[in-house]
Amino acid sequence: MCPHDAAVEAGLETGLETAFTIDASRVTFGAGSLAEVGPRVRAHLPDGGRVALFTDARLRALEWYDAATTSLVGAGLDVVTFDEVLVEPTDESVDRAVAFARDTRPDAFVSLGGGSVIDTAKLADLLATHPGELADYVNAPLGAARPVPGPLKPHLACPTTSGTGSEVTGIAIFDLLSAHAKTGVASPLLRPTEAVVDPRATSTLPAGVVAASGLDVLCHAVESLTARPFTTRPAPEPPTTRPAGQGANPWSDVGAARAIEVIGTHLRRAVADSTDEEARHQMMWAATLAGIAFGNAGVHVPHAMAYAVAGRVRDYRPEGYPPDHPLVPHGFAVAVNAPAAFRALAPTAPARHLEAARLLGADTSGAGPDEAGEAVATAVAALMRDVGAPNGISGVGYAAADVPDLVAGAAPQRRLLDNAPSEVREPELERIFHDALRCW
Amino acid sequence: MCPHDAAVEAGLETGLETAFTIDASRVTFGAGSLAEVGPRVRAHLPDGGRVALFTDARLRALEWYDAATTSLVGAGLDVVTFDEVLVEPTDESVDRAVAFARDTRPDAFVSLGGGSVIDTAKLADLLATHPGELADYVNAPLGAARPVPGPLKPHLACPTTSGTGSEVTGIAIFDLLSAHAKTGVASPLLRPTEAVVDPRATSTLPAGVVAASGLDVLCHAVESLTARPFTTRPAPEPPTTRPAGQGANPWSDVGAARAIEVIGTHLRRAVADSTDEEARHQMMWAATLAGIAFGNAGVHVPHAMAYAVAGRVRDYRPEGYPPDHPLVPHGFAVAVNAPAAFRALAPTAPARHLEAARLLGADTSGAGPDEAGEAVATAVAALMRDVGAPNGISGVGYAAADVPDLVAGAAPQRRLLDNAPSEVREPELERIFHDALRCW
Repeated sequence: MCPHDAAVEAGLETGLETAFTIDASRVTFGAGSLAEVGPRVRAHLPDGGRVALFTDARLRALEWYDAATTSLVGAGLDVVTFDEVLVEPTDESVDRAVAFARDTRPDAFVSLGGGSVIDTAKLADLLATHPGELADYVNAPLGAARPVPGPLKPHLACPTTSGTGSEVTGIAIFDLLSAHAKTGVASPLLRPTEAVVDPRATSTLPAGVVAASGLDVLCHAVESLTARPFTTRPAPEPPTTRPAGQGANPWSDVGAARAIEVIGTHLRRAVADSTDEEARHQMMWAATLAGIAFGNAGVHVPHAMAYAVAGRVRDYRPEGYPPDHPLVPHGFAVAVNAPAAFRALAPTAPARHLEAARLLGADTSGAGPDEAGEAVATAVAALMRDVGAPNGISGVGYAAADVPDLVAGAAPQRRLLDNAPSEVREPELERIFHDALRCW
Repeated sequence: MCPHDAAVEAGLETGLETAFTIDASRVTFGAGSLAEVGPRVRAHLPDGGRVALFTDARLRALEWYDAATTSLVGAGLDVVTFDEVLVEPTDESVDRAVAFARDTRPDAFVSLGGGSVIDTAKLADLLATHPGELADYVNAPLGAARPVPGPLKPHLACPTTSGTGSEVTGIAIFDLLSAHAKTGVASPLLRPTEAVVDPRATSTLPAGVVAASGLDVLCHAVESLTARPFTTRPAPEPPTTRPAGQGANPWSDVGAARAIEVIGTHLRRAVADSTDEEARHQMMWAATLAGIAFGNAGVHVPHAMAYAVAGRVRDYRPEGYPPDHPLVPHGFAVAVNAPAAFRALAPTAPARHLEAARLLGADTSGAGPDEAGEAVATAVAALMRDVGAPNGISGVGYAAADVPDLVAGAAPQRRLLDNAPSEVREPELERIFHDALRCW
């Protein structure tokens, strides 16, 4: 009997989980697929109607915006555009988007952009379809965690960065300004109806954005692969309330493993040369695969720590991002913690950490369980260095004296921390943040 | 530029396909998950209602039927059972199921059984929800190929054999008695709303059924991996009509490859020992993975040939199946053609055929493209022999003199044949059927 089956037998007797549930949106992937947005929305609105197109000011000036609107208008749809989405949205910027949606009363939503745009559209769809305010639906303890009452209006998400995965998940994240904290809303009902992924949109991404978003994808995949196994969670009652962050399972393992391989082969090339179409398209594919994986497994420690790293930023201004305010791009905020987190967690799940290192291209032949943490930390750090990522949390402006404050920011992220393969509380976070000061 | 990207660039200019669309049902997989059927149906029927439970007489006597009904009744649902599903259903047996559904007017459908049960429930749901008769919706030229008009009532499919994949596809197959031919209905709207896969149900399967259905899974996976690439098909207009059988694509490749690996490691054990729980559970997982893969890629030559092999059966009566009439189980009808078909097709796509052989456990190091066909044919034939499959089409009662008749039966299956990596018409079918007389 393999360990999985032993766990299942135990679970049936002890109330631990013995099953997992996987969900995925319809995804259309391919060069030129933005031309399908119109007919695809129209299939949901046979009588036509009004579409709210969410984007940001940078994208509105690019050809991808024209491709989407041409397709929508060509399908006989009325288009109203909201282009005021903020990179790293706040409750204030989301409220403006909600007001737009409540004013214009669209029959469907299309989002064209990175995670910020897609997440903003999810929340606008929620609050234009159902009553209430943002705070009603926000995760506890910052919000009232009211369940999403029912289906939303059709939403087609068209990602333009190879990172977020938001197009296939039911999660929307933003900064709650009053609390100086990132928070969000999570529900399977928030998952876009369809994703249309045109990898050509990555050709206009600055190298720094490809690097940051690509490292976010890497962490989605490695965290999904190394999350606690689904068989170690209590079985929910009723079973229909099983969370999307249910832990590593045989389904998420398949997509996560393939995504790591693709990243190991293509991320360096995609960053180094914006004309390397194959590498940039493959990174978009890795983002989609990893999105499907973590949307059914959940991420854990590096993402939990990222809330604190991004939220307490002082003066870090990365290349390729809007220069008007300091910002740690989400992918860098996650990745700077990753080598230290994987090094700390590997002793609980050495085989999976070794596997992640091997999939990234490291030679792990003959490596024992004791070497798993160092193997994956080294492979991730080497990739970070090669794509110009900051060198640990000191690379984005933090010193050892900041660690207590960072721990205080990360420790409340219990939903994520509880998805780690072993227990992570303040003492563990403190050790990992210290180790994360530098990655190489 | 890799071949894929070159194909995409060419496709954008020549009207060939540059995108693929993937769809998947919600799937719950795990030991004990039949206890979730009630709450899961109830989530679709918040006000309660009547559920038509489709099964067959053998299953009705087993504990899995009790588990499903207990869960449904416990969720406050009214259950009516139809247990007259025929193994390898016919238009007559489907018509009886439709009459039952039209009489009892259920609010939702649950199917518990193999592909025959799930396919019958799909068709009963179609014809109890929408007007018309079976022949209206059957694929041309045997039927009128009327499009399914709209969504069906909720359908939870619970497979009890590790083979069909029907729980995650929009295809329903049956014998049209008047035409002495297998045919079916295909539409994304036929795909069950959810699949609930309890691998414990495989513990009561006869070894012969595990062997036949396991070889069907193997062919789903290898045919998905070796299908013509999606980039070689004409782009459909509108793009929303892209077929599920769209050819090999990066998504189906991932699931198909993992399924082949799992089968190579577990099918022999699952057949040899009905108490080898790990092997039987893993085969159920391979069936789900391969179902998702072929549901988004399509199968080709071995399945097209199987229509003729099954339809012209004279006196083959396999172990583990109802003894009242001669029958070539679907999995054997497919597998007897597989080594010969792969041998013939490998020269067009040698790398993928070699990969299939490697994933099945063959040592392909150093093998050249010329050896791909023999490598995969040998690996598949060895697995067939070890699990007691018939030795080619002669093993199920055909001789060389039957080949013209078999070619005539397979040649009209253009939808499947056109999904092969190279052109397959009567002359190619004749050669492959001759080579398929024996597999070893």
